[in-house]
Amino acid sequence: MLQALRFDGDALRAIDQTALPFEERQLVLHSADEVADAIRRLAIRGAPLIGVAAAYGVALDAPDGIEAACETLRSTRPTAVNLARAVDRVRAAADPVAEARAIEAEEIANSDAIAAHGADLLRDARRILTHCNTGALAAPGRGTALAVIAELFSRGGLQGVIATESRPLLQGARLTVWELRRLGIPHELVVDSAAAGLIASGTVDAVVVGCDRVAANGDVANKVGTYGLALAAQAAEMPFVVAGPTSTIDPDCPSGASIVIEERSADEVRRDFALPDTPCRNPAFDVTPAALVTALVTEQGVRRPGREPVRA
Amino acid sequence: MLQALRFDGDALRAIDQTALPFEERQLVLHSADEVADAIRRLAIRGAPLIGVAAAYGVALDAPDGIEAACETLRSTRPTAVNLARAVDRVRAAADPVAEARAIEAEEIANSDAIAAHGADLLRDARRILTHCNTGALAAPGRGTALAVIAELFSRGGLQGVIATESRPLLQGARLTVWELRRLGIPHELVVDSAAAGLIASGTVDAVVVGCDRVAANGDVANKVGTYGLALAAQAAEMPFVVAGPTSTIDPDCPSGASIVIEERSADEVRRDFALPDTPCRNPAFDVTPAALVTALVTEQGVRRPGREPVRA
Repeated sequence: MLQALRFDGDALRAIDQTALPFEERQLVLHSADEVADAIRRLAIRGAPLIGVAAAYGVALDAPDGIEAACETLRSTRPTAVNLARAVDRVRAAADPVAEARAIEAEEIANSDAIAAHGADLLRDARRILTHCNTGALAAPGRGTALAVIAELFSRGGLQGVIATESRPLLQGARLTVWELRRLGIPHELVVDSAAAGLIASGTVDAVVVGCDRVAANGDVANKVGTYGLALAAQAAEMPFVVAGPTSTIDPDCPSGASIVIEERSADEVRRDFALPDTPCRNPAFDVTPAALVTALVTEQGVRRPGREPVRA
Repeated sequence: MLQALRFDGDALRAIDQTALPFEERQLVLHSADEVADAIRRLAIRGAPLIGVAAAYGVALDAPDGIEAACETLRSTRPTAVNLARAVDRVRAAADPVAEARAIEAEEIANSDAIAAHGADLLRDARRILTHCNTGALAAPGRGTALAVIAELFSRGGLQGVIATESRPLLQGARLTVWELRRLGIPHELVVDSAAAGLIASGTVDAVVVGCDRVAANGDVANKVGTYGLALAAQAAEMPFVVAGPTSTIDPDCPSGASIVIEERSADEVRRDFALPDTPCRNPAFDVTPAALVTALVTEQGVRRPGREPVRA
């Protein structure tokens, strides 16, 4: 089984996701600073995974450097609320390493529960479209949305997956395709802007994505492009399902309007295509209103954000 | 003034659009086969421009090779109806070169009229989002959607443009940014999937795109990704304007369902990001239903496809 993170007591070993799919390289991180750097440059990514990585990062610098470690790790990425929560839990714990291990174990169990609930919900889906990467590289265990897909495939019935490439950093093209291949699940890769037309033409039966933060009213911040997929699914009267652990729900955030959207470097957009000084906008996430979300699948089961608040 | 094509009597000289923005290279094409090859590999692209290029391609092989030239050029790209129409006009003409020159002159005049009608319609827009490339590299003269944008800027009032990169071949990142820079129009480049969120957040006042073929009922085939932008504009109650000459309207095509969507090579999707044998879908276009099109701007004026047929 693929394991994106492995804590060995002295160091956090992590698959370097910037090197995939062409090279399987391992990072060995000895301090909170090294973990923070890996999170910042997306060598470690995915909301549940960066939460666990940050927990181990705090544990690595405890007890003496714990306050500075918490501050550094909290600032790495502003959108995922579970990262801040994991940092706080480890800081408050009597045994930081044990607490980080507990968070990891919880997320692994969450992943299995999400996979089962999601597969129950989508039992009739034959083809699914997904966005970005939400598998074992994004969350401890099997992942979130991709865990649902893997569970559906293992139960039989799922015929194939359409994966969006997920510009700018191509987590779909690089990571999701790599995971689907390991899992033996038939798949086709598309550019992001092909998704809406394929949804409209009935090429898939459902859209399933992960989430970086869910507001109390059910609005979902997720990888940029998610909102457009939700609009296309609504227009096609197709299920639009969001999968993630309750650790990504932020009860203190009333709606998507309060979610800070991380703006990343213009270089990610320009790459070697555009003239070097071209001005860019590069929001890493967008907000999908709760009304467009058919179902939110967490480890606790299935909720309907458009009809009820996600957390009372 | 930028001129993407120039016919000198013996050859068609064309800017090689595959080399932009880093190199301004000229192709010198002496036969229909050479023109067809340039169209196929998108060295010459944009519906109105490939129509004119094909017209000159037929003229280059006339009179002896005219039938074979017509067949070759017609088959280069299936979605743009004006290409087939231009080929037919030159074949039927007594003087093929004069006919090709006439088609070019008409499209240049169309471009000026589209620019004026579109700028009248959008006179209050301060910021516009556009997709793919629709400027002087896409149509003889000033272009279509980008001609509207350039005219708005020259009249004063337009503050800036958001250009989508337009994967897979990045006509936005490579060509639109290059044109906007030449025109001195402030701009920002975004990945395609960032557009919907920026539209929702009120970053722009209107979305303006070109068209590759318009069906009799007003459905629009255009660069893949256009449909998603139309959905986002509708959700934001923002004008979604399609600009193109009437030569792109196909009265024999009842609706978008009848439009053949060109499927291009998987290599365009995979580039050097994805594992080499990754299966892909690569539709070059999608169909936007007429109901989502606020206005269709042609050289004849402004029509409302959602409310009336585009051609009686």
